[in-house]
Amino acid sequence: MEEEDSADPYLPYDGGGDAIPLQELSGRGSNYAMSNGGGGAGASSSTHLLDLLEEPIPGVGTYDDFHTIDWVREKCKDRERHRKINSKKKESAWEFTKSLYDAWSGWLVVTLTGLASGALAGVIDIVADWLNDLKEGVCLSAMWFNHEQCCWDSNETTFAERDKCPQWKTWAELILGQAEGPGSYIMNYFMFTFWALSFAFLAVSLVKVFAPYACGSGIPEIKTILSGFIIRGYLGKWTLMIKTITLVLAVASGLSLGKEGPLVHVACCCGNIFSYLFPKYSKNEAKKREVLSAASAAGVSVAFGAPIGGVLFSLEEVSYYFPLKTLWRSFFAALVAAFVLRSINPFGNSRLVLFYVEYHTPWYLFELFPFILLGVFGGLWGAFFIRANIAWCRRRKSTRFGKYPVLEVITVAAITAIVAFPNPYTRQNTSELIKELFTDCGPLESSQLCQYRSQMNGSQAYPAGSDAAATPGVYSAMWQLSLALVFKIIMTIFTFGLKVPSGLFIPSMAIGAIAGRIVGIAVEQLAYYHHDWFLFREWCEVGADCITPGLYAMVGAAACLGGVTRMTVSLVVIVFELTGGLEYIVPLMAAVMTSKWVGDAFGREGIYEAHIRLNGYPFLDAKEEFTHTTLAREVMRPWGNDPPLAVLTQDDMTLAELQNIISQTSCNGFPVIVSKESQRLVGFALRRDITIAIENARRKQEGIMLNSRVYFTQHAPTLPADSPRPLKLRSILDMSPFTVTDHTPMEIVVDIFRKLGLRQCLVTHNGRLLGIITKKDILRHMAQMANQDPESIMFN
Amino acid sequence: MEEEDSADPYLPYDGGGDAIPLQELSGRGSNYAMSNGGGGAGASSSTHLLDLLEEPIPGVGTYDDFHTIDWVREKCKDRERHRKINSKKKESAWEFTKSLYDAWSGWLVVTLTGLASGALAGVIDIVADWLNDLKEGVCLSAMWFNHEQCCWDSNETTFAERDKCPQWKTWAELILGQAEGPGSYIMNYFMFTFWALSFAFLAVSLVKVFAPYACGSGIPEIKTILSGFIIRGYLGKWTLMIKTITLVLAVASGLSLGKEGPLVHVACCCGNIFSYLFPKYSKNEAKKREVLSAASAAGVSVAFGAPIGGVLFSLEEVSYYFPLKTLWRSFFAALVAAFVLRSINPFGNSRLVLFYVEYHTPWYLFELFPFILLGVFGGLWGAFFIRANIAWCRRRKSTRFGKYPVLEVITVAAITAIVAFPNPYTRQNTSELIKELFTDCGPLESSQLCQYRSQMNGSQAYPAGSDAAATPGVYSAMWQLSLALVFKIIMTIFTFGLKVPSGLFIPSMAIGAIAGRIVGIAVEQLAYYHHDWFLFREWCEVGADCITPGLYAMVGAAACLGGVTRMTVSLVVIVFELTGGLEYIVPLMAAVMTSKWVGDAFGREGIYEAHIRLNGYPFLDAKEEFTHTTLAREVMRPWGNDPPLAVLTQDDMTLAELQNIISQTSCNGFPVIVSKESQRLVGFALRRDITIAIENARRKQEGIMLNSRVYFTQHAPTLPADSPRPLKLRSILDMSPFTVTDHTPMEIVVDIFRKLGLRQCLVTHNGRLLGIITKKDILRHMAQMANQDPESIMFN
Repeated sequence: MEEEDSADPYLPYDGGGDAIPLQELSGRGSNYAMSNGGGGAGASSSTHLLDLLEEPIPGVGTYDDFHTIDWVREKCKDRERHRKINSKKKESAWEFTKSLYDAWSGWLVVTLTGLASGALAGVIDIVADWLNDLKEGVCLSAMWFNHEQCCWDSNETTFAERDKCPQWKTWAELILGQAEGPGSYIMNYFMFTFWALSFAFLAVSLVKVFAPYACGSGIPEIKTILSGFIIRGYLGKWTLMIKTITLVLAVASGLSLGKEGPLVHVACCCGNIFSYLFPKYSKNEAKKREVLSAASAAGVSVAFGAPIGGVLFSLEEVSYYFPLKTLWRSFFAALVAAFVLRSINPFGNSRLVLFYVEYHTPWYLFELFPFILLGVFGGLWGAFFIRANIAWCRRRKSTRFGKYPVLEVITVAAITAIVAFPNPYTRQNTSELIKELFTDCGPLESSQLCQYRSQMNGSQAYPAGSDAAATPGVYSAMWQLSLALVFKIIMTIFTFGLKVPSGLFIPSMAIGAIAGRIVGIAVEQLAYYHHDWFLFREWCEVGADCITPGLYAMVGAAACLGGVTRMTVSLVVIVFELTGGLEYIVPLMAAVMTSKWVGDAFGREGIYEAHIRLNGYPFLDAKEEFTHTTLAREVMRPWGNDPPLAVLTQDDMTLAELQNIISQTSCNGFPVIVSKESQRLVGFALRRDITIAIENARRKQEGIMLNSRVYFTQHAPTLPADSPRPLKLRSILDMSPFTVTDHTPMEIVVDIFRKLGLRQCLVTHNGRLLGIITKKDILRHMAQMANQDPESIMFN
Repeated sequence: MEEEDSADPYLPYDGGGDAIPLQELSGRGSNYAMSNGGGGAGASSSTHLLDLLEEPIPGVGTYDDFHTIDWVREKCKDRERHRKINSKKKESAWEFTKSLYDAWSGWLVVTLTGLASGALAGVIDIVADWLNDLKEGVCLSAMWFNHEQCCWDSNETTFAERDKCPQWKTWAELILGQAEGPGSYIMNYFMFTFWALSFAFLAVSLVKVFAPYACGSGIPEIKTILSGFIIRGYLGKWTLMIKTITLVLAVASGLSLGKEGPLVHVACCCGNIFSYLFPKYSKNEAKKREVLSAASAAGVSVAFGAPIGGVLFSLEEVSYYFPLKTLWRSFFAALVAAFVLRSINPFGNSRLVLFYVEYHTPWYLFELFPFILLGVFGGLWGAFFIRANIAWCRRRKSTRFGKYPVLEVITVAAITAIVAFPNPYTRQNTSELIKELFTDCGPLESSQLCQYRSQMNGSQAYPAGSDAAATPGVYSAMWQLSLALVFKIIMTIFTFGLKVPSGLFIPSMAIGAIAGRIVGIAVEQLAYYHHDWFLFREWCEVGADCITPGLYAMVGAAACLGGVTRMTVSLVVIVFELTGGLEYIVPLMAAVMTSKWVGDAFGREGIYEAHIRLNGYPFLDAKEEFTHTTLAREVMRPWGNDPPLAVLTQDDMTLAELQNIISQTSCNGFPVIVSKESQRLVGFALRRDITIAIENARRKQEGIMLNSRVYFTQHAPTLPADSPRPLKLRSILDMSPFTVTDHTPMEIVVDIFRKLGLRQCLVTHNGRLLGIITKKDILRHMAQMANQDPESIMFN
């Protein structure tokens, strides 16, 4: 081409005035201590989509923080990489080894993730248990033993006394030297509150100082990230470290929160960090999200000891793009994690969770009625909780109150500790409470809940229910449970959303378990005293074990968890894996379905979707149906009085004109058309790619000046002889932009965006470019149609 | 419009010469006895995509037999219907009831499907069992009892003798009056063969005469149907009836086949038939496929007693479009079916399958080596089987041999029966064989496989392996098993593909179970005689039960099934549900993964994909990656020397020109452009819709003549005063056709087709129409790239 040898002297690029404000584009400029969770620099260029003849420009094809990824482009990049490795494979032994490494890296990264998640979960379980018991006392023989471990060597072998052993000293015994009396009670009370406050303070301070992303459950953000959003550092090593430490502290502080949701976040951090060992995953945002899907399955697997449930959770609740290969790898990661946790054996029962149960009696058809009632309760609780919690979180965001997170945590922790201590059901660890509520009353149970007449008489025969009349002990337990229920309900609303790691699964399950146990005992007593009612007469033999209150607790727990999260299959499978019996799936399903339907009647969002919306993340829910009849032309920009769409022409713009357009608009990309007259579409160029390409050209190519012609065509346009050297930008042009016609119903457009993972789509009419629809436009339109504030979308 | 009142007299439509050969379009014109499985006549029109102002034309929006559905259009139709019902909901109590019915019909239809599948599976199990025992003898006390039921009342209570009771007579006893001796052996041999041949003959005749679609396993066709293909009658009531009856006969005939695959087909028939009760499903091909996905989950659920495995099977193996709502409903259908089957209790063990097992010993790490060996065997078997079976099926199709299906079945049945009788392991029912091989040797086992020295000594203590030295009985059993293995391998190759219902799961599992048991016993004896080897020394205490040969049989069964079908997660979960222990998932995964990798090394297709390709169904596999670098312009038509693309212009064609184009081309649809000069795309019209609309206009509108102007625009073009009344076809114009640019890589195009379920896609360059890509073009291109014959795609 003749322009190549034009002898124009090199004029330094006059970029001062028109410098593109790159920093302004990057959303919130929050840069935390780490920068792991991002696209990585120098990613392999997406040459396939672009021009194959051009040299890749470094930086093209990466993303800014708080931007949406283009799934199609990422997958093309990955296939390109795969092809390159495959074609080189036969060249040498070294290349063959590299291709093998590449093929196995997927399995390797999920194995590592599973190992790390299992190990971390085990450590968290053990340390949280120890810290929790520290609130009550210490083990003199070995400081690092928790209460149970401390008493393992004890000679007290009767079960009722198994908690009391000389090695274990309460704080009152240690400080005051006496175990009983009001003084020692107050001493224990004080120490309990003191430790709770210390743990809570430590947790919130660590989070605030080192890793603000470590707070909350993390599941809303992980859902958003998996749907293709970039949040740098959310899954980085600092978040992992601080979240692990503060999770232990937060659980031990006795706040009404669980460790299950945060465990998913921890597992995803592990997955993200390990994916940096493998260029296949670190350099491709879409592939990385496959690892994260597997990691979230591993997280649930260790949280509940339910590998299959974990995979279904990942599939149903968090994942966006879930190919079958990911299903298989998620399953593997979940299993590895479960086996690591089992070999660590944090609970000393060779189970993965504290509340694994086995029931021995079947359920009867008439029991479906109370089960469905529990489902209704769960749905109501879910709807109430979501509204109340979102209202509180919104208030926290909008008022001055949110400025003092440490104070808030301390206050909540103090109230929790002070109110919780007097009631044995709130004082104990929530997991232990759930275990006690789930467990059937066997002859070995010393709990107040199991003080039936048969046991008080000393008849230790199984089943315990053979004389199922409750003693006053059971009634007082029920009162205490009712108080605990109210307490948990109130505290959970204020706890979820605090600036500490806080999961919602355990408090929800505890609330459901308490309600379920209460209902269960009520039905049991009804059956005992009215065994001649036709319902009970038909099924319950006198003197036989008929009602299992523990099962009610489990059904209630599932219903409440379902009401809050709106999970269905994965929830049933998780609880099924806890009981191990197909037998109890029907009650579970009945309750979970009822709960979902009742909850949906008050609002279709689960708590995670509600928090996503509260935080304004650009999340296009795959579950929600778009039911309106609008057309693409009503959603696209420009619309009405908007300024016309900023477009580039393929070969008659100068660099100055291009930079002018870029600096005057804020959109992330520009359609390229044949000419202003014909408006026929040629391609699409991303703002970030254009700026990078221009800077690159300024550095490497001589003769690029402000009046240089910019062209996107294959061959340079014919120019006057004295014009400066033109700039070819074809390599950054996406020549296969997605287009829809202006008559396309929005339901189809939304479908395309969801299924293909698009960032933007161009709108044409009879072949002419009309406008553009971006993911943000769709979310804004959906908010508008749902009578919500459209401006609430995107970054607060 | 002035054309409306033009006073031209009504001239009868001269359609004789230009009559559109509608029948020619409908692929194979095979019309079986029923016509249930199709779009149904008078489906609600896809008004939304089209012009909302027009009256819907009956028939527009339905499909011909052997055509591909348009998922996007179907889903739009369903949303439109949903909106209509929702908007009317508040008008009256009746409309509200209708909307409730509509909302619940999804649950209702899956419940009914589950009920019917469970009931049919129970009946099939019971009758097949009875017929199978009929080959050996009859129960004198009650003809309709099978061998086991007959002897339930017997006084023989020792376990070894539990099969022998006076009420049960073998044929020799009945006819010759003697139970022992060569004469009675020959008599039994003869009767066994006679019954086997009778059953086989009856089965193949019924299939041939009444429902040719009832043959085979049905899974390849169901996969194709679920991917969006129409095969009328494949899931109709005749197929259901004949398949149920002949399945029982085929299983009882002793052929090397199973009932598990056909059960999926039976369940899908139930789903399809019940969907006709609900217009929501009967009138929408996409919605109907949701029911079919749930039905296939129910089918696997009853086939293996594995509800969760069934859902995952549906997700992993057969389904194409699987929204979360379907996951939930599939789970429900699978559960309902399982519970119905359990209450029918066909095996008298309150289990869903014959071969439910519980193991009591753990596995040791060194056992992974034999497990992986079994995986290698499974993979090799799978690859060998697929090649051999496909080669045989291809020969059957291409030579005269395939013309005599009855003769072929009789021959195979005769060989099977004659060879099978002398060997006890092949004589018995394959399910029972699998059960025996899976079961651990307990003190109650009388089988030859369990004649260990400890048992021969009369020590009945558990575990049996306390003196695990095998006696000659075990060795002779191993010889017989080896012969059975060879026999099964050979017969299965020739059996799968016969014109009787034939599943592949049970024979594959049997082959794997035999191989696994042999390996298991070998390892067991090795461990017994060489217990001082460091491997065994570390894990196996002397005299303790160390190796479980039954577990090897199960692992082998999973590996062989995995090798043939290439299922992964669902297979592991199905076998996990058979054992009920998380413990054994790791051996299973190791074997299944090895088997898949070994099998994939020889060819990536599973048996179902191979049969789909053999039959030329247009199935676009979602699992297979498209890895080539071709662009859309290389695949689109017209290409090279092809005639130019047949296009319609939006307002300057006459009816005669339109009919001319339609009659001279065979494509299923035509792009509509602005004008021949500009080539800018307006929309897309389907051939079927155009012909229906023209016929409709001829019947209803006056003044339509051959030189009438046809227009697709909103307003009629201005015409000379004397021209006949124009015909408006805007209502059948799809104004939102999918387009890609000519530079789009084919990997993206394939992705779009898969994910959105398109039928065709138009190709443009700079806004101008260039060509079209249909699903067939893509399949043809993929075959070309894989060096296969591109013409093998589509209908043989």
